Amino acid sequence: MVVTQKSLSSFGAEEDLLAVRKKRDLSCFDLVSVDQLSNKDLELIFAVARSFRDYKTHKFSFNKGFSQINAFFEPSTRTMASFDLAAKQLSMDTTSVSSSSSVSKGESFLDTVETLDSYNVKTMIIRSAESGVPEMAARHAQASIINAGDGWHEHPTQALLDALTMLDHFGGKSLKGKTVAIVGDIMHSRVFGSLVRILNKLEADVRIAAPLTLVPKYADRFGVKWFSDVEAAIKGVDVVYALRVQSERGASGFIPTLREYSKMFGISRKRLNLAKPAAILMHPGPVIRDIDVHSALAAVDPQSFILRQVENGMAIRKALLWLLADRFDGKVKEFKRL
Amino acid sequence: MVVTQKSLSSFGAEEDLLAVRKKRDLSCFDLVSVDQLSNKDLELIFAVARSFRDYKTHKFSFNKGFSQINAFFEPSTRTMASFDLAAKQLSMDTTSVSSSSSVSKGESFLDTVETLDSYNVKTMIIRSAESGVPEMAARHAQASIINAGDGWHEHPTQALLDALTMLDHFGGKSLKGKTVAIVGDIMHSRVFGSLVRILNKLEADVRIAAPLTLVPKYADRFGVKWFSDVEAAIKGVDVVYALRVQSERGASGFIPTLREYSKMFGISRKRLNLAKPAAILMHPGPVIRDIDVHSALAAVDPQSFILRQVENGMAIRKALLWLLADRFDGKVKEFKRL
Amino acid sequence: MVVTQKSLSSFGAEEDLLAVRKKRDLSCFDLVSVDQLSNKDLELIFAVARSFRDYKTHKFSFNKGFSQINAFFEPSTRTMASFDLAAKQLSMDTTSVSSSSSVSKGESFLDTVETLDSYNVKTMIIRSAESGVPEMAARHAQASIINAGDGWHEHPTQALLDALTMLDHFGGKSLKGKTVAIVGDIMHSRVFGSLVRILNKLEADVRIAAPLTLVPKYADRFGVKWFSDVEAAIKGVDVVYALRVQSERGASGFIPTLREYSKMFGISRKRLNLAKPAAILMHPGPVIRDIDVHSALAAVDPQSFILRQVENGMAIRKALLWLLADRFDGKVKEFKRL
Repeated sequence: MVVTQKSLSSFGAEEDLLAVRKKRDLSCFDLVSVDQLSNKDLELIFAVARSFRDYKTHKFSFNKGFSQINAFFEPSTRTMASFDLAAKQLSMDTTSVSSSSSVSKGESFLDTVETLDSYNVKTMIIRSAESGVPEMAARHAQASIINAGDGWHEHPTQALLDALTMLDHFGGKSLKGKTVAIVGDIMHSRVFGSLVRILNKLEADVRIAAPLTLVPKYADRFGVKWFSDVEAAIKGVDVVYALRVQSERGASGFIPTLREYSKMFGISRKRLNLAKPAAILMHPGPVIRDIDVHSALAAVDPQSFILRQVENGMAIRKALLWLLADRFDGKVKEFKRL
Repeated sequence: MVVTQKSLSSFGAEEDLLAVRKKRDLSCFDLVSVDQLSNKDLELIFAVARSFRDYKTHKFSFNKGFSQINAFFEPSTRTMASFDLAAKQLSMDTTSVSSSSSVSKGESFLDTVETLDSYNVKTMIIRSAESGVPEMAARHAQASIINAGDGWHEHPTQALLDALTMLDHFGGKSLKGKTVAIVGDIMHSRVFGSLVRILNKLEADVRIAAPLTLVPKYADRFGVKWFSDVEAAIKGVDVVYALRVQSERGASGFIPTLREYSKMFGISRKRLNLAKPAAILMHPGPVIRDIDVHSALAAVDPQSFILRQVENGMAIRKALLWLLADRFDGKVKEFKRL
Repeated sequence: MVVTQKSLSSFGAEEDLLAVRKKRDLSCFDLVSVDQLSNKDLELIFAVARSFRDYKTHKFSFNKGFSQINAFFEPSTRTMASFDLAAKQLSMDTTSVSSSSSVSKGESFLDTVETLDSYNVKTMIIRSAESGVPEMAARHAQASIINAGDGWHEHPTQALLDALTMLDHFGGKSLKGKTVAIVGDIMHSRVFGSLVRILNKLEADVRIAAPLTLVPKYADRFGVKWFSDVEAAIKGVDVVYALRVQSERGASGFIPTLREYSKMFGISRKRLNLAKPAAILMHPGPVIRDIDVHSALAAVDPQSFILRQVENGMAIRKALLWLLADRFDGKVKEFKRL
């Protein structure tokens, strides 16, 4: 399978989007971690996502009979809504399980997943407060598992939509020569876990700015450069990527107060001006205004690409479903080792 | 655009219901308050609702690709279920967000709404414990916003279904000469907020019967007549409209006990007999039996139109979606100032 | 109406599955209790379920315009998901009401049910912590009511899927000569309530093994044989059916500790070996591993039919909807007395 630049650029024609499902394959059957994706996989996903973004009329859909379960063992607003609508707009039947009553009765995650998998579904979207639940599910379920965020580990569709947003802004097929400063609660962030991996694949330079208490040990592994001073970190970068302080995952034990955190790491107009003039501001949402990002910047500033990220989220999720939902007829699924 | 009596009466023919979506427009793009609706708007909505009520086979639906988000930041059973089914029966894809986890993480309502709006939805149905959230949303979102109840403010689709129920019972295009007695917790009732506005437009006489502590100051503005004695209020009216004591909105601070409230303001057979013989009993639900309305009257009495109201609710909601969901292709949405 | 063995075996042909909806009728309009079902009803349901299980491509569906409400007044993961997907895969529009906010505001169950029934739905699936809610609903609603579990009373679709699983394993049209040992918290189990009834109809011999404190008085009525010693109960049986200790329904007051309960009544490899060599292990789920059933047996053991039960659940629910959802056009519904 060769995805050439030419064939990708012709995307958007009706035949191509149907053809891509028949002829081109991702190298994985599930999406648990960005590590599973080759650069060719990335190109394919981005190309299909761009097509879906252009075809807002929703012309493309599966035949009747494809089902999806949204298994969200941890609350979610935007991710759940976008995965649910993405599937429905592709004519899939969906049902959602949130904060499973079975698990609360004492059932193991694995039994819950295998039970839901027995309903003959094509895709299962899993979010969990515990790291590793989606991977375990992928090793056992017939359905294609998509990780919608697990504990402090990964949130791969967020990284895909972030990378698409950057690539579309800067042009080109990689982020070589671009510098991304990721600011805030790195340690508790599954967004960071996936983002740093995809930025590595796309050859961006990555800086992180955070209190030392919120820097995870594994950050070194990805060759990121740590700054305790947010202004030094932002200076001259192409992307300022602010994270949310994840109080619900215990972050508040690592910072003095939200007010002091905001003073030291919140993104203001003045701080954003330290970046390159064409730099963009990104945030995975939900934004805590005046803590992570000053109110005046959040949604309306021309440098803020936060709502663009949300739109790309829908496109990325539709693209993944398009590429994954029908892979197993007559095949044996095999989990690609990480 | 002229909606003549003749063209309205011909509704129900297949061509007309399709034609109405192409040719006739409401004067607003959103429905936040009954104040936005002209009397011509009302006639159009009622005519379409009657058609949907007659065509229970659900022949009419949008083309694939229309989506709706039900953003219910406050719990709801009947309103959420009817908006959700109304959209689905029109072939829309829907997803529901209840008691937003993003808002609980500290996101502003506006950011939540703008995020959901980025999923390219046609309609967003909003309920909130705070007054004003739907209006703020309507000023910012591309989607058509329908207020499904905001705080103590308004609940316009309830007023539309109530007015349809009365007009169908009494005949004619207005309620001129009819008297409606609204009984109970006026102050905390968004139902009252919308109902009194639509009754004004339809020229009904309105009486209210409530403890003085539960009468809002703004009631005077609508020319309603206040009675402390429920029996005096009901005497000779055409409609007895009972409200629920909204304990969850703090009403219990304003009345001695529910038992005493019921004794003074609950609607019994004896009290209903004080109204005109052809009078009808209405209630927005949920009915708290033997507090608001005596059990024997609630659902089964021939004068009780409570279940008729529920049926009309589905028809009104389908009519609104039919008229609003496809207004913005290529147009600039402008929020109609109140 | 005669359902011959021949006509049943020809099921699976496209014409037959459409024909069955037009020509063959269940003897009831609702499914509240297994007591409502004749043996002919059972044969019809099983035959249609087998067809749906074979046609996983979901070729069969209703015309647009059929709606279902899932009214789950008590939390549920698997039952709700399977009823919801079953309806959607038949092209029904569904909406779900969980832990009704109306009921929490003080509305009666009956008013909630009548309200939801006014939305012109074909089927309403009801689960409640209180016994009797589905029956009351069936006496009043136009929609076909399916009991998805009420209190300690019944859970008839579970019994149907269990019976289908046994019949398919052993072959034949009855379970005559087969012995089923039901182990665990009999008293609080609505699964037991339905299972013992269907096993009676299918002429199986039934043993129960439980602490005396967890045996309900009514068990005698069904001619079951009680064992305090689980090993004696299992000896030589064809089916070992383990139940879950329903702590949320107060079971913990009747046993010393879960650990001791497990020691006395948990199903281990050694205990399962006491049954016939071809015996199967069943459980309605969720399985509490190492309490009800030892981990090594739960999902992977070849004698465990637990996931087979789940698959059959989807098929049974689709079959019931297929047979019930369109019964009332122009007819007067009458609740079949038990």
